[in-house]
Amino acid sequence: MSGFEPVGSDIKWQGKIITAGVASYRYPDGRLVTRDKVWHPGAVGILAVDAEQVWLTRQPREVAGMTDSLEIPAGKLDVPGEPPLQCAQRELVEEIGMHADSWSELSGFYSSAGFSDERVWLYLARDLSAAEGGAQPEEGERIEIVPWPTDRLDEAISECQDAKSLIALLWLTAELTRGTL
Amino acid sequence: MSGFEPVGSDIKWQGKIITAGVASYRYPDGRLVTRDKVWHPGAVGILAVDAEQVWLTRQPREVAGMTDSLEIPAGKLDVPGEPPLQCAQRELVEEIGMHADSWSELSGFYSSAGFSDERVWLYLARDLSAAEGGAQPEEGERIEIVPWPTDRLDEAISECQDAKSLIALLWLTAELTRGTL
Repeated sequence: MSGFEPVGSDIKWQGKIITAGVASYRYPDGRLVTRDKVWHPGAVGILAVDAEQVWLTRQPREVAGMTDSLEIPAGKLDVPGEPPLQCAQRELVEEIGMHADSWSELSGFYSSAGFSDERVWLYLARDLSAAEGGAQPEEGERIEIVPWPTDRLDEAISECQDAKSLIALLWLTAELTRGTL
Repeated sequence: MSGFEPVGSDIKWQGKIITAGVASYRYPDGRLVTRDKVWHPGAVGILAVDAEQVWLTRQPREVAGMTDSLEIPAGKLDVPGEPPLQCAQRELVEEIGMHADSWSELSGFYSSAGFSDERVWLYLARDLSAAEGGAQPEEGERIEIVPWPTDRLDEAISECQDAKSLIALLWLTAELTRGTL
């Protein structure tokens, strides 16, 4: 399979977070394809694990119709120039009021590669401690902090309907089952 | 945490596949929130497994900049009224030329719950057999069929950058490790 070159974008709408329009690509054989495209700044997700629990959140996800989506802590790359790891460290404090001394990158993936360039950086955060001042939700954020026992991970996976969080929790299940974490 | 009511949508652009705009929601305390929103018809993904391999594909994902994304077979719910399971059965034939006698729903999730209503239905397909006529790619689709040995799943997970496929492959890893599949 051969590569393609981007040959142009026709921006149709710029929202607060996303930009939508049509992008065109040319293949070496001359074929031109056009795709609906959503540009997104990218996001981070954090799998924060201590000896007995993984730190989850519940929050409304209005556009998906969920009143209390069970998720890992996460956030958008909405500070210009901020590297993903730094964003993850900031979000862990803001959303659940924790610092972590140990960070490693677990995975990087595209949420919906067919129409969006949103990439998610997923981190494992360990050696947790309470941050001074606790959680600092942004104005209007309605985030509940949910410490979840790691011996009941299957129940979290059954309830969870958020892609990045499922990836993190399934990864954790596999590692715990193998005894490699 | 209390629920919210949708109170209106302002469509800004209608593409071939997606629709983009702003949606508003009202909380019981009177607070109004507006969100960038991408409406999407939804999609299916298929984890097709036989005794020794899982059936994967490689295909370009232009908007995400990937020339050969390693994925499970998948497709959009782009036939009006077609139920997700029927779409999955059709896509398995079209993309990899296989029928399955055994189907079960593994999971349902939102790709990017913060800005899109795209829901993915994930199925486990077993008891596979070759479909008459083989794979039937749509015009212009460039899909390579990749049978992947299940004893080398970790390598597929390392390479894969597609959310729905990671969920399926991590689920399979956990089941195989536990000996429950």
